[in-house]
Amino acid sequence: MNNNSEKLLGEWLQKVEQQLDLLLPADGTPPYPLHAAMRYSLFPGGKRIRPLFCLAACHAAGGSSDSALTAAAAVELLHSYTLVHDDLPCMDDDTTRRGKPTVHVQFGEAIAVLTGDALLTMAFEVASASPVNAAKIVTALARAGGSKGVIAGQVMDISAERPDEKTICAIHQHKTADLIAAAVETGALAADAAPDRQQALVRYGNATGLAFQIIDDLLDSDETAAAHKELSCLQVWSTEEARTHAAKYTAEAIHALAAFPPAKTAPLIHLAQSALNRTT
Amino acid sequence: MNNNSEKLLGEWLQKVEQQLDLLLPADGTPPYPLHAAMRYSLFPGGKRIRPLFCLAACHAAGGSSDSALTAAAAVELLHSYTLVHDDLPCMDDDTTRRGKPTVHVQFGEAIAVLTGDALLTMAFEVASASPVNAAKIVTALARAGGSKGVIAGQVMDISAERPDEKTICAIHQHKTADLIAAAVETGALAADAAPDRQQALVRYGNATGLAFQIIDDLLDSDETAAAHKELSCLQVWSTEEARTHAAKYTAEAIHALAAFPPAKTAPLIHLAQSALNRTT
Repeated sequence: MNNNSEKLLGEWLQKVEQQLDLLLPADGTPPYPLHAAMRYSLFPGGKRIRPLFCLAACHAAGGSSDSALTAAAAVELLHSYTLVHDDLPCMDDDTTRRGKPTVHVQFGEAIAVLTGDALLTMAFEVASASPVNAAKIVTALARAGGSKGVIAGQVMDISAERPDEKTICAIHQHKTADLIAAAVETGALAADAAPDRQQALVRYGNATGLAFQIIDDLLDSDETAAAHKELSCLQVWSTEEARTHAAKYTAEAIHALAAFPPAKTAPLIHLAQSALNRTT
Repeated sequence: MNNNSEKLLGEWLQKVEQQLDLLLPADGTPPYPLHAAMRYSLFPGGKRIRPLFCLAACHAAGGSSDSALTAAAAVELLHSYTLVHDDLPCMDDDTTRRGKPTVHVQFGEAIAVLTGDALLTMAFEVASASPVNAAKIVTALARAGGSKGVIAGQVMDISAERPDEKTICAIHQHKTADLIAAAVETGALAADAAPDRQQALVRYGNATGLAFQIIDDLLDSDETAAAHKELSCLQVWSTEEARTHAAKYTAEAIHALAAFPPAKTAPLIHLAQSALNRTT
């Protein structure tokens, strides 16, 4: 089962890469250098976990992963915009990401703002072309990405001076779990899943998203001994407490899938376990 | 007829204000101060011409203006985001707009970036809730606002050093006409207009948008004798040439409405003529 999930996820990853490559205008097309900067921020990508959550949720709900490809690409475009804007000098002021200069370092600040704007706008153009439930997919994505979702998380993040446990959990919820839950929700919508199935999948996505962010914080703290300005749950939890919380969320996530056919949920379970046990 | 158009447009303006007020979360709701900044950028508004174009187009196509209210609000939200981001220090670096400090002056640069992001995201959330043709309305809005539309115009604007006539016309097209054409298109979609009707309305919107921007340039040059860093068609045209172009576009716009019942197009014609003859 696990080998089969890995094989499926590998195929889906390839499809996501192809889809994104197909959607993005070529580097040299006007207005220069906007499209080059959009591609620079998207390729080479990270693990593309949000699109994979979307496709695996569609699969779990009995849909064909192809029908969720546009939704999956839209989620990655939206995620990519958040990285470009979060890196800006007026935000986290990061100069490198995934081993290369950030967009504003490479292309200047104005182009970085516009690149984020263009990726965000393209996310909705792509989502609106979904073959099934297009308008609902746009709604789910916009709600998760909006002023009460991802953006709320970023506002809290930049204004939190001495965050307590509650604030850190709220930031994790909005900055990470809201979008992963939406990735799963759009996959369920692409499969036209019944409302109770959708809700179960969203519970899975939300819990996995919380676990994912806790592990991110743990990996960040291993990575470097330098003083980290970034907000982390390790400011309020010990390493062991953090691992316990992440394991609890992962168990919750897998439990939320109980009513689905096991053969169909194998990729989702694999993703949740990989998110928990990863070392990078 | 003209009086009736003015009355209708006045009623629609009120509905647009109500709709925007209804959609925007209250000032004091978390995450602070994001929602306050979103309201600050939207209220008090300008003339709300883009929503009025949308409602008048829906009316011309035989629809009820109510069915286009969400699309109209979405267009204004998107327009408002462009103003917030264009004003940023890394872009036009403007410190006042409509007689008050710009968003980044009032709330700081990070909140201004996030306010623009949130307005843009909300535009698509609102558009996706349109009662008729929601997905198509999202597509039209995203295409007009995207990397080959409004954002292309802004990229060209910030990179144009000694713009020629062709460049200035392309910037007018993208920064202004693309969104006004989309406002009209979303109105036509809300009325579920037949494709040839939609196309005629888009031709109207595009030509009116071009005329609107030329008049803006003329009014800006009257307004202040100070050296204007802003790009203007008066860098390549005389005042008289500019007026001739604007009048030609307005005539084209009105001509595009020839196949519609005159009683229904009166508000659109009034808007086109007002855009041409306005003094503010």
